[in-house]
Parts: sequence; structure tokens; C-alpha cells
Amino acid sequence: MQRIDVQQTAEFLRSCEDAYILIHQSPDGDCVGSGYSLQAVLRQLGNRAKVLCSDEIPARYDYLLPESEEEFEPKCIITVDVADPKLLGKYKDLYADRVDLCIDHHVSNLLYAKQTLLCADAAAACEILYALYRYMQVQFTEQIAMCLYTGMATDTGCFKFDNTTPETHIYTAELMREFPDIRYGLINRNMFDVKTPSRLRAEMLMIQAMEYYLDGKCAMICVTQELRDKTGMEENDTEGLTNLPTQPEGVEVGVTLREREPNVYKVSLRSAKDVNVSAICQGLGGGGHVKAAGCLLKGTLSEVKATILAAVEKGLEQA
Amino acid sequence: MQRIDVQQTAEFLRSCEDAYILIHQSPDGDCVGSGYSLQAVLRQLGNRAKVLCSDEIPARYDYLLPESEEEFEPKCIITVDVADPKLLGKYKDLYADRVDLCIDHHVSNLLYAKQTLLCADAAAACEILYALYRYMQVQFTEQIAMCLYTGMATDTGCFKFDNTTPETHIYTAELMREFPDIRYGLINRNMFDVKTPSRLRAEMLMIQAMEYYLDGKCAMICVTQELRDKTGMEENDTEGLTNLPTQPEGVEVGVTLREREPNVYKVSLRSAKDVNVSAICQGLGGGGHVKAAGCLLKGTLSEVKATILAAVEKGLEQA
Repeated sequence: MQRIDVQQTAEFLRSCEDAYILIHQSPDGDCVGSGYSLQAVLRQLGNRAKVLCSDEIPARYDYLLPESEEEFEPKCIITVDVADPKLLGKYKDLYADRVDLCIDHHVSNLLYAKQTLLCADAAAACEILYALYRYMQVQFTEQIAMCLYTGMATDTGCFKFDNTTPETHIYTAELMREFPDIRYGLINRNMFDVKTPSRLRAEMLMIQAMEYYLDGKCAMICVTQELRDKTGMEENDTEGLTNLPTQPEGVEVGVTLREREPNVYKVSLRSAKDVNVSAICQGLGGGGHVKAAGCLLKGTLSEVKATILAAVEKGLEQA
Repeated sequence: MQRIDVQQTAEFLRSCEDAYILIHQSPDGDCVGSGYSLQAVLRQLGNRAKVLCSDEIPARYDYLLPESEEEFEPKCIITVDVADPKLLGKYKDLYADRVDLCIDHHVSNLLYAKQTLLCADAAAACEILYALYRYMQVQFTEQIAMCLYTGMATDTGCFKFDNTTPETHIYTAELMREFPDIRYGLINRNMFDVKTPSRLRAEMLMIQAMEYYLDGKCAMICVTQELRDKTGMEENDTEGLTNLPTQPEGVEVGVTLREREPNVYKVSLRSAKDVNVSAICQGLGGGGHVKAAGCLLKGTLSEVKATILAAVEKGLEQA
């Protein structure tokens, strides 16, 4: 349960053998890019390495995957971009207690690994890995570069969010100079713009359902079972759409209610500017980050809406 | 009608007096950021300077504007980000023939000014200006930094498009290091995510109207007068939404038809990947860029659709 620095991490990687690299469930661009770049680097060092994920890697990340995989039993367990062992999903029971090295950028990291390289200022795990690989004088390949670019771009909303650092931009520039032939624009299109037709339709239905409260400072979308039955909207098409109610001009807090079972609602709050939605959700028995938080509320739809609007109104006053 | 380099441009700016800085009509983040940063720099050098635009500057750029303006007659005319004097709008007749200096990044620049600093590789006019100001050892202020950041971010779709250069990222990193207190994430939210409720509604109606053709490789949205009458959608809410039909997975060409008058359609084509839509539109009497082009077609809606689909099918075969 020891924190280590870049130099110690480099020493560990140079001497480790037969590594399993575990990434978090519901994999995103940063953990996929982290996992597969580290696999490539360990192989370059003459080691065997294999990425494991509790969920299937979505097909849009196929361009980051190696041509071949090897089967072997691990002598060493590494996690990347995994703040909490429960995010290992089905691999939790098998490996959570024997993680040798964790590389992560989440301030909430539980320090569950024997050794942890934690850089909470980094925008992405891939940003940490970029610096680590440079320190190790790794031979960058096009695949490693695509992995690192994808991780940094996706975790920052394409350099849009506040977590973007000067280093994110510098490292990206260095990758672009060394690998001018990578189609960065096409990667971004596939990561940020391409949507399945059913996803696009869910977006449309959710915009249609948007309600405005508190002088337009709060927008709310209620995804009820009734709405799902009427439209055929699937639950997983609404994942990741919780930023939608922050889009209208003037909105400070965006709320998405999703009915989990009768009279039980999962509530997601997003702050567009200065309201601390983590505090609001803590007051309602939930939690999260300052700009993105959630809670579970019981009651009729109108009761739940009233509870949230009262809490949001108080949050707006305090901001 | 002479092309000049950064050094000559610096000399010009150091010696020019009482400058009008003209930016293009339908102003965007790059020309606004270019114009107002240059105004600040010229004032720093002890000159009078004033930005002119044929259209009103949208309120979302208010944070880039200076606190005060001065009234004076110009001794010198400068254009920034203006490829063609006709983009000066209502100022064209007055100033088009007497532009002393043009600073631009469009390869299509008509070289209409007496002297032109043209860097067609730059992602944004603000990228050229950043390098120019550094060469001139300008004292950067927060306002100049916000202008340059806004120009580079908006012209690249927040570093998403293929025109993004390593320099875009490097200059951005340098601005972030020198001015860590600027709220870059909030600027991006206002530039890219915030939408008026009527704009959001137009998006919803357009997604609703999306049709798929050619095995899903072509998506088409027809904004007919009938649709406008039925929904109350306003024409200017649909501006800039021509990328919408490129969002569905698998689409290679996105088409937006907008009825201008009975049996006359403005057609906008967007290429998601490799199809050259400029060539397609040229074949139909229009033109544009490889990835974004348009034309005007006459006929009934079904005739116009058939014409376009035949041309897109040919374009897909040639890609």
C-alpha cells in the first residue's frame, strides 16, 4: 500500500514478468488506451502481457488492439485507471487482493495495490503513461501513439473540459509531430460524433422530454417507464446522456431522472458552472463530484421532482 | 498584392497608425479573437485601433471585447481571417480596394490586399497571430490570451478536426501555463455545448426527420416549408446543423436539403470520411471544400432527392 514515483514504476515494469493488465468495467478510451499501450511496452521489453476487462471492449476501440494475444498464467497483476477494486467487475474476487502495481489519475484512488503511481493532476491515465514511457525511453510505435492520444482526448472531452492540462496539449503535439500520418480527426469523429441510430433517437426523445424550472436555471429530463414503453427507448441508449440537460442557454444545473422500478428514481445532476452538485446529492443520500453527482430517490414522480427542485434551488442560492 | 512574412508584418504593425481592423461577416470565434487581440496589441504599441464587422458580434463573444472603443478616421486598413473582400459585407464598397494588410489562413485567399501574411497550414488566424505576437515580444494580457485561445479552439472544433496542428496544441499549452486562471472549460462550454432552447428543438426535429439511404452510407434531412409550418422551426435555427446527418454510425455522406422557395432546394453535403463532396457538388453546379460542399437544385422534392442520391452513390463508388 505504498505510493511510488515514475522512476520506481519504471524499475518495476523493467523487471516484471508475465503481467495481466486489468482495466475497469464499462471500459472507456482512457483505460483501453492505457491497457493496450502498456501491453505493447511490456512486450517490447521482452515480457508477456495481456489486458483483461470485465466487459467486452466496444468495437470502436478495435484500432487500438494488437494483432495477436497470448495465453499464460500471470506472475504479476497491474491495474491502470482503476480507482477502486470493485471496478474490476468479475475479476474482482480473483485479483483485487493481489494487485502489484496500480497506475491511476483519480484522486479517489483507494490505494488498494501493493504499489501505486498516482498523479491526480493528470487529465488521463494515458497522460501519466506518456511521461512514464518517455522516461523509460520506450520506442513509440503508431499503435502506442494512437492508444495515448485516444486516452487523453477521450478523458478530456477532446481537450474541452477543465481537467485538460498544459501537459495534455504538449504531449499531444509531440505525438502529432512524431506520427503525422495518424488520422487524429477520424479518431475524434469516431469517439465523439458517431452515434448509433437508436442512440440518436434516444437523444431526440430526451430533448423532447426536457422541462425547464427555476427561471430556466434548471432543466430536467424524466425518463419514466411510461416514456420507454411508449417510444421503445432502451435504457442503455440513455447512458452518458446526462449532460444533455446542461445544454440549453442559461441552465446551471441539469437533472436526469431515470425510473429504476415503480417509485424508485436514479437521479443524475450535472453542474454547468458554479453549483456544487456533489453537496446537493450528499444532502439527498448520494454523492459524486462537484460537477457530476447522483442519488437514488423513492416516491412518486411529482414527489421526487419536488424534492430535487427544492435542493437545486438551495444549491443555486449557495453558489 | 505582395506576400510578406512575419518579420515584415511585425514592421508594418509597429509603424502603422489609426487602424481599422475588418473581420468577416457572420463572425466566428477566430475572426473575433483575431480582431480584438490585434486591436489590443496595436493599442499597446500606442496606436489607435478599432474592429469593424458587417454583422453584430454575437453576445457569447462579449468576454473578448475591450472596455472602451474610440472614434477616429482610419489611416490604415487591416483585414484578419478574410479570404475574399466580399466577406466584408456592408464594408466592402468602402474598404475592399484599400486594404493595406491582410492576415489570413485560408488557402483560397484572393490576395486582394496590398500586403498579405498568408499561412495556409495554420488551423486558425489566431494561430498565426500567436506566433506573430511572440515574435514581436508583445506583453500578453488575459484578454489577448482569451482571444487567441477562443480562435484556435473554435476553428478546430475544440482540437477535434483534421486542421488541428501540433502548433495549435503547443500555443494552447503555453497560454494555459501563462494564464492558469482563465476558465478554459467554461469558454468551451459556451462555444460548443450551450444551445438556445429553439436551437435544441430544431436539432430534435431534424433528427426526427432523418432518412437513411444507400445501405445506411447516406443520411438525409429534408427541411421543407411544410415541416417548418408544422413545427414552427425557424430557418436560422437550422444554420450550422449540417453536420447532424453525418453522426449516425456507418454514414459516409450527410445531406441536408433546405427548401428556399417552392421547388428550389439548398443542398449541403458533408463527408464523414473519404468521399469528396466538393466533386459531387461541382457536378451539380455547386462547389466547396472536400469535406463540406453545397449546391442549389430545382425540382420537386422527390426529383431533387433522386438527383442527389445518384450523385452520392457515384461519389461513394469513386472513394
